[in-house]
Amino acid sequence: MKKLVLAYSGGLDTSYCAKYLSKEKGFEVHAVSVNTGGFSKQEIAEIEKKALQLGASSYLSIDAVETFYDKVVKYLIFGNVLKNNTYPLSVSAERIVQAIEIVKYAKKIGANYIAHGSTGAGNDQVRFDMIFQIIAPEIEIITPIRDKKLAREEEIKYLQENGVDYSWEKAKYSINRGLWGTSVGGEETLTSEKPLPDSAYPSQLQEKEPQEVKLTFEKGELIAIDGKKDSPVNNIVKLDALASKYAIGRDIHVGDTIIGIKGRVGFEAPASLIIIKAHHLLEKHTLTKWQQFQKEQQGNFYGMLLHEGNYLDAVMRNIEAFLTDTQKTVSGDVFVGLYPFQFRLNGISSQHDLMNASFGSYGEMNKGWTADDAKGFIKILSNSGKIYNHVNPSDD
Amino acid sequence: MKKLVLAYSGGLDTSYCAKYLSKEKGFEVHAVSVNTGGFSKQEIAEIEKKALQLGASSYLSIDAVETFYDKVVKYLIFGNVLKNNTYPLSVSAERIVQAIEIVKYAKKIGANYIAHGSTGAGNDQVRFDMIFQIIAPEIEIITPIRDKKLAREEEIKYLQENGVDYSWEKAKYSINRGLWGTSVGGEETLTSEKPLPDSAYPSQLQEKEPQEVKLTFEKGELIAIDGKKDSPVNNIVKLDALASKYAIGRDIHVGDTIIGIKGRVGFEAPASLIIIKAHHLLEKHTLTKWQQFQKEQQGNFYGMLLHEGNYLDAVMRNIEAFLTDTQKTVSGDVFVGLYPFQFRLNGISSQHDLMNASFGSYGEMNKGWTADDAKGFIKILSNSGKIYNHVNPSDD
Amino acid sequence: MKKLVLAYSGGLDTSYCAKYLSKEKGFEVHAVSVNTGGFSKQEIAEIEKKALQLGASSYLSIDAVETFYDKVVKYLIFGNVLKNNTYPLSVSAERIVQAIEIVKYAKKIGANYIAHGSTGAGNDQVRFDMIFQIIAPEIEIITPIRDKKLAREEEIKYLQENGVDYSWEKAKYSINRGLWGTSVGGEETLTSEKPLPDSAYPSQLQEKEPQEVKLTFEKGELIAIDGKKDSPVNNIVKLDALASKYAIGRDIHVGDTIIGIKGRVGFEAPASLIIIKAHHLLEKHTLTKWQQFQKEQQGNFYGMLLHEGNYLDAVMRNIEAFLTDTQKTVSGDVFVGLYPFQFRLNGISSQHDLMNASFGSYGEMNKGWTADDAKGFIKILSNSGKIYNHVNPSDD
Amino acid sequence: MKKLVLAYSGGLDTSYCAKYLSKEKGFEVHAVSVNTGGFSKQEIAEIEKKALQLGASSYLSIDAVETFYDKVVKYLIFGNVLKNNTYPLSVSAERIVQAIEIVKYAKKIGANYIAHGSTGAGNDQVRFDMIFQIIAPEIEIITPIRDKKLAREEEIKYLQENGVDYSWEKAKYSINRGLWGTSVGGEETLTSEKPLPDSAYPSQLQEKEPQEVKLTFEKGELIAIDGKKDSPVNNIVKLDALASKYAIGRDIHVGDTIIGIKGRVGFEAPASLIIIKAHHLLEKHTLTKWQQFQKEQQGNFYGMLLHEGNYLDAVMRNIEAFLTDTQKTVSGDVFVGLYPFQFRLNGISSQHDLMNASFGSYGEMNKGWTADDAKGFIKILSNSGKIYNHVNPSDD
Repeated sequence: MKKLVLAYSGGLDTSYCAKYLSKEKGFEVHAVSVNTGGFSKQEIAEIEKKALQLGASSYLSIDAVETFYDKVVKYLIFGNVLKNNTYPLSVSAERIVQAIEIVKYAKKIGANYIAHGSTGAGNDQVRFDMIFQIIAPEIEIITPIRDKKLAREEEIKYLQENGVDYSWEKAKYSINRGLWGTSVGGEETLTSEKPLPDSAYPSQLQEKEPQEVKLTFEKGELIAIDGKKDSPVNNIVKLDALASKYAIGRDIHVGDTIIGIKGRVGFEAPASLIIIKAHHLLEKHTLTKWQQFQKEQQGNFYGMLLHEGNYLDAVMRNIEAFLTDTQKTVSGDVFVGLYPFQFRLNGISSQHDLMNASFGSYGEMNKGWTADDAKGFIKILSNSGKIYNHVNPSDD
Repeated sequence: MKKLVLAYSGGLDTSYCAKYLSKEKGFEVHAVSVNTGGFSKQEIAEIEKKALQLGASSYLSIDAVETFYDKVVKYLIFGNVLKNNTYPLSVSAERIVQAIEIVKYAKKIGANYIAHGSTGAGNDQVRFDMIFQIIAPEIEIITPIRDKKLAREEEIKYLQENGVDYSWEKAKYSINRGLWGTSVGGEETLTSEKPLPDSAYPSQLQEKEPQEVKLTFEKGELIAIDGKKDSPVNNIVKLDALASKYAIGRDIHVGDTIIGIKGRVGFEAPASLIIIKAHHLLEKHTLTKWQQFQKEQQGNFYGMLLHEGNYLDAVMRNIEAFLTDTQKTVSGDVFVGLYPFQFRLNGISSQHDLMNASFGSYGEMNKGWTADDAKGFIKILSNSGKIYNHVNPSDD
Repeated sequence: MKKLVLAYSGGLDTSYCAKYLSKEKGFEVHAVSVNTGGFSKQEIAEIEKKALQLGASSYLSIDAVETFYDKVVKYLIFGNVLKNNTYPLSVSAERIVQAIEIVKYAKKIGANYIAHGSTGAGNDQVRFDMIFQIIAPEIEIITPIRDKKLAREEEIKYLQENGVDYSWEKAKYSINRGLWGTSVGGEETLTSEKPLPDSAYPSQLQEKEPQEVKLTFEKGELIAIDGKKDSPVNNIVKLDALASKYAIGRDIHVGDTIIGIKGRVGFEAPASLIIIKAHHLLEKHTLTKWQQFQKEQQGNFYGMLLHEGNYLDAVMRNIEAFLTDTQKTVSGDVFVGLYPFQFRLNGISSQHDLMNASFGSYGEMNKGWTADDAKGFIKILSNSGKIYNHVNPSDD
Repeated sequence: MKKLVLAYSGGLDTSYCAKYLSKEKGFEVHAVSVNTGGFSKQEIAEIEKKALQLGASSYLSIDAVETFYDKVVKYLIFGNVLKNNTYPLSVSAERIVQAIEIVKYAKKIGANYIAHGSTGAGNDQVRFDMIFQIIAPEIEIITPIRDKKLAREEEIKYLQENGVDYSWEKAKYSINRGLWGTSVGGEETLTSEKPLPDSAYPSQLQEKEPQEVKLTFEKGELIAIDGKKDSPVNNIVKLDALASKYAIGRDIHVGDTIIGIKGRVGFEAPASLIIIKAHHLLEKHTLTKWQQFQKEQQGNFYGMLLHEGNYLDAVMRNIEAFLTDTQKTVSGDVFVGLYPFQFRLNGISSQHDLMNASFGSYGEMNKGWTADDAKGFIKILSNSGKIYNHVNPSDD
């Protein structure tokens, strides 16, 4: 029998796939979901139950949260990656790791087919297919939703006719949770002009009393909150829980999809945004001007390629080597104030802080050089401009 | 008699210069202040009075607000320039235009000397001197404050001894106002860890009721607020007045000075931040992916050179030509919500909006291509990765 | 009857198309060839004869040499564009202009179909199709060679059966001529290790006596050779004729195709290489450091997008505005020595030359500053490094 | 007594320093020369003799060839660094390593002073002083030539008066040899228009018979020539000896000095140029498009900062980590033809070659995808352009 691994989420599309592929197409369907931070234990149990009821021969939930952090999230922090200066790439980044885990599993159980439920209109199909084809070109990719362009009603009808009678009512907002953020789509995000209503966001304001938290970084990684050490993944989860009570981290991303159209999606990502901004501030104190200059370019480029599914391009490993090397001195505490709907970066403390009063303070009296040194500096700095103006006199 | 133009602000340092240079050094001092948006008429009248009392032969207030906008601010908007992702370059940018106006004035009246009150520890001395030396290498630059490293007390004492008896009490926070923002320095900004207290900022929260404003851009310039047309400069002033009631636009910039030390400075720049972010959002809808990619790099680079006083480098004109050309389609309305201490970008409306449903919507059903097109696309997009993995098999 | 415009070159593939589309598919075939510098009048006359014999209803030769220069070549010179530091993008660049002219012609005569003879394995199909689809999405693209994957023998057999009996012997090397260079493909370029034999190149060494030519540029354009003024296009043609006698300008380009595989192609492009290198030298004398820095990045990027068929992306117009603006001072003479198989840049003369002895000569005595100025300059330039090393002491 | 380390080359300027500083200024002068490939044993013996005769208390020759390779040259190869697309940074790169060795030596022997013979008009003073000040801010830098602006005649006269009577006739061309190339300055390089005469270059044409050499790289390093393994440094020396017989590798560099003026200098660097170009070709076959894109930018930037003496900036270590990581697959043979005055890259052979016929060859029949795949690819690639043109119809 033809072994097939189905990327299964428990939703309508992949439920349709599970039934359709096992019943109509004769596949031995092995359902798998890869948890990159979005599923609770209870949700996983429900997904498993569904998968088996729908005809899957087996179900596996792969816990890939640590892998997700190690392979991707860590570098998004090192690179201060915010796509278009806004979006922490929450969902894009997860898809990569999910695809890698799925293809590994397919190879392990000797499956010749992988199925997923993406449509032909979005980025996810590209991210999934590219990873599958590059790592396992011998495996065939099956995508009923993309191929058949079924409407929701048709899928529901088919499932009902086959004795599957869950309630599939469409949520007003499609929500996608993960370690690095939650995306929110709805009718407003299909327009250019409307914001999402407050109620569309999963977290609601619960805490109005401001507080300050201390984030401790070591070589770029978040190793403690308010002095309590824990793994970076746990710290992200904790910070997310804390900051989401303030309804921090909401925004809308407008970007270019891989297939060339513009897309708009809401997101709520309190921990990601706070960590990236806090980390960035720490870097402003601990890195040289040219390190920051190069990091900005490399980080943006890394984010662009990741977003577009090019995670496996060899240049990504090279940039990771670069980013890792830049983090040698990015250690210290960052003080962050939490307020309703926003946070403020109050300051940092680091033994690698280059803002070091023993050499002179900005705008205050200088200790390391004289007025004549400064004049000589400026004089020679002006040389090229002087020559240019002499050779090319301007008109005014 | 030796004619000298003094960049005069009415503060202690330049007041000392006015007296010292006219009385002790025998210069014919022509005081000048260049208004880039920071001075009211009344303030100018007071500055004039002081200047003449201190021994200046003449005083002139040059209104350079429009020039400042045309030469610099416009391009900072086109380029979405925020230094280190934070700072709208408020003060840096003003210095450039002030220097240019001063040197023009000096040439016009045939002065052989220009004096300014900068110390030897900051950026401003570099910005001023470079412009002076490049445009007018024949003019000698006189900087008593930098050369003599006087303490405030010494300056006050000297002025008192010479019959000048203003109150020079040091403000707790040094405030620098201009069209594009206000900088705030104080004892906290000399540390790395302390934020400025709310009270240090010039504007205080007066309005708690949220409201939405509509900003209309034409080819990248802000031509109307809530449908009322006005000049970009006036619109900046109006938006600033409106948004500062919400205490919007406060932050602290940490950056590398031209002289190689790190500096930290608070600022309040509601209009600048709102305009740049609104403009950027409009660009996300109206520019192609590669336009945004190149603009980000060019904009950052432009900001870096401007900050470092390299405004006269010929590359700046080249980048301005580039930026101007990118704005051809950046026209439309941006809807911005104003809230206490923050603003939100609600959405945009533009006839150049590339998020155009007639071609297919992100994540929804695709209209312009088939499932097979998408598969072919991804297949060929995977070619290079497939070959790489085939030639360089990975270990897992 | 269905009107179709066929991009016709006179070669086997497009001859097959002409017959096949008119006879089997019932199209009214309007053959067109766009001359971007590769065809002589006699060749065009022969192409016309063939086209009509093969069943084309009409034939048109569009002279696009000036257009090619104005739209593309000019900017390749301004940007010193050599793909992968080697290849002047000869063929890539032509395809763009050919596609634009073809689609204009199709619109003009009201054709609903455009046919071309590209295979499915190369770059040209992408360049052609993208331009066609973007400018005229309503026109259908017909590509029999790509679709049917015919072998040469099948095409020849079909043509013979239909009474067309030209000699179609396959040349040992496929040659593609144009204003900006000639590409040469053969069995060696399908390997990685073999060079093309000398005899594969169209031009052979005829002149061994070295000579110097003077190239005069005005705002980046080649306006005279040895003092004789002519149009840039004519100057390119003249320089090509002169330098090809020295067998100058041969090389092999190894690059990434748009479809993700590596390709290798020989080329002979004496005029392009000499002009680009001469122009670049002139820029080293007349542009500032930062102009050169930005130009290098913009030029490379422009070349990459052009190569990949993205000529119509709006960012290309923006970069052209940038490049044009950089050329304001790129005027002067460049002295080039021609030798068998190579050329040497001897020097330049320009009134915009920034290497200007009145300010001090490199390594010689300095006139514009003192030893103390230099020391102050270096001292302050060392500030950031000093602080970094103080804060992060190294181990040695 | 005041201990001073003098960077001593045996030339007039540093000989003057040796005598002047020991006799007039009462320093205990410890002369040191750092060999980065430019000195033979015999030359070193002569330098030692001179130093001691001139009053130096000690002389040491530090062999830093391997250090030079490991710290700098290796990365110049990895990054294909040619300043302004021409110059292998021969001399700039040596200065860095020389300065580091000198300051280490000074610290070791407890010297409080370092002296060098640079003038105030060039780059070397900046490279030396910056390294000294950053690593050892407590050591004072003494530069008599820069400070006193002495003419050659004055120096010679002083030495004669002090009993030193060498022949100091000025060579027509100042030659600076090192592992990575030889610079040549003369009266022609002080102009913009004159080339150096053939006779100015140290190597003259001795071999006219072309030959092919095989260069073997392993992870970017040159490990064998014609199959004979040796250390990279020895291979550079061997290739230099071989290629200089063909008078290969001559050119003139025009660049921006650190002090803002333009400089022009001839050089002869056969091994550097051949190695960089051969290495680059190997990379075109073994790296992905985006690796090459990023490497080009990083390599250029690395070269710029190295040239300007910023070797110690932390970003340089980060870029070295990046470059090293990119070299993982840059292994294989490169075949290079040597001819009088030039070399040609014939081809490469590598097991990491991505030009791999099993996936389809450029321009030939495609094996890995169908015509429909290609059409789907191009269709979706055209999406953004189509939408742009639809929204912003052009005028033609």
